[in-house]
Amino acid sequence: MSDAGSQLKEKIKAVTRANEEFYHAFESLDVGCMDRIWLQEDYVTCIHPGWSLRVGWPAVRDSWVLIFNNTFSMKFELTEMQVQVAGDLAWVICTENITSRQGEAAQESRVLATNLYEKAGARWKIIHHHGSPVME
Amino acid sequence: MSDAGSQLKEKIKAVTRANEEFYHAFESLDVGCMDRIWLQEDYVTCIHPGWSLRVGWPAVRDSWVLIFNNTFSMKFELTEMQVQVAGDLAWVICTENITSRQGEAAQESRVLATNLYEKAGARWKIIHHHGSPVME
Repeated sequence: MSDAGSQLKEKIKAVTRANEEFYHAFESLDVGCMDRIWLQEDYVTCIHPGWSLRVGWPAVRDSWVLIFNNTFSMKFELTEMQVQVAGDLAWVICTENITSRQGEAAQESRVLATNLYEKAGARWKIIHHHGSPVME
Repeated sequence: MSDAGSQLKEKIKAVTRANEEFYHAFESLDVGCMDRIWLQEDYVTCIHPGWSLRVGWPAVRDSWVLIFNNTFSMKFELTEMQVQVAGDLAWVICTENITSRQGEAAQESRVLATNLYEKAGARWKIIHHHGSPVME
C-alpha cells in the first residue's frame, strides 16, 4: 500500500475510535467525559433530535447536562457507518440504534447522526453533532 | 489582512455561494440543477427529515426526484447560518424556514440542516445534506 494509502487508513482508524469515544461518553451520562472529547471552541455546534441549534461550547455542554440529568440509561449500537477524512477534518455518518430508559420502561429508537471531527494536535475532537429521528 | 486571512474570506464567500446554489436548486424542483451541484461520487450521502440514509449519488439523486415529483412549490429563507472551512472541506449549519405547497394549502416549517461541501477543481460541490425537523 502507498504511504498516502496507509496514512489515510490510520486516520480512518483514529476517527472511528474518536467516534466510539463519543458514544461511550454519551452512554456514560457523565458530562466530564464530554468535556474531554469536544473541542471547546465558539464554533462547535450541536443539534439533538427535534431540538434547535446550539452554538459554542457553553451552549453545547449545557445540552449534554440537560440530557444526562433526564436519562437513566442509554445504550448505542451503531450501524450503516460511513467514515470519511479530508486533511484535518473528518465526518462520520451513522445510524444510532438506541435503547434508553428514563423511568421504568425501556424504549428503542433509531437516530441518524452526522458527526464532524477536527484534528487538534494528536487527537481528533468532535466539533459538530447532528442527530435526527428516523420515521420511515 | 494577512494573505491567509483574505484567502479564508474568499473561501467562505465561495462556500456561502455554493450553499445558496443548493437552495436555489431545491426551489427549482428540477433534478438537473441538483445534477450540476452535487459531487457524483459513491460516498456522497443525504438524510431528509425523517427519512433513512441515502448513500451514493444514484440513491441521493433518486431522493430528489421523489421529493420534486411530490412538491408543488418550496421557498427557503435561511437563518442562523454558520459557514466553516478547513482546507478543501467546508460545512454549513443553517435553519431552513420553509414555505411549501403540495396541494392548495401552504405549509410553514422549520428544518435544521448540516451541509458538507468539497472543493472539486474550482468549484465547491455538495457531498452531504442532513435535514431534520425542529420540534422545540
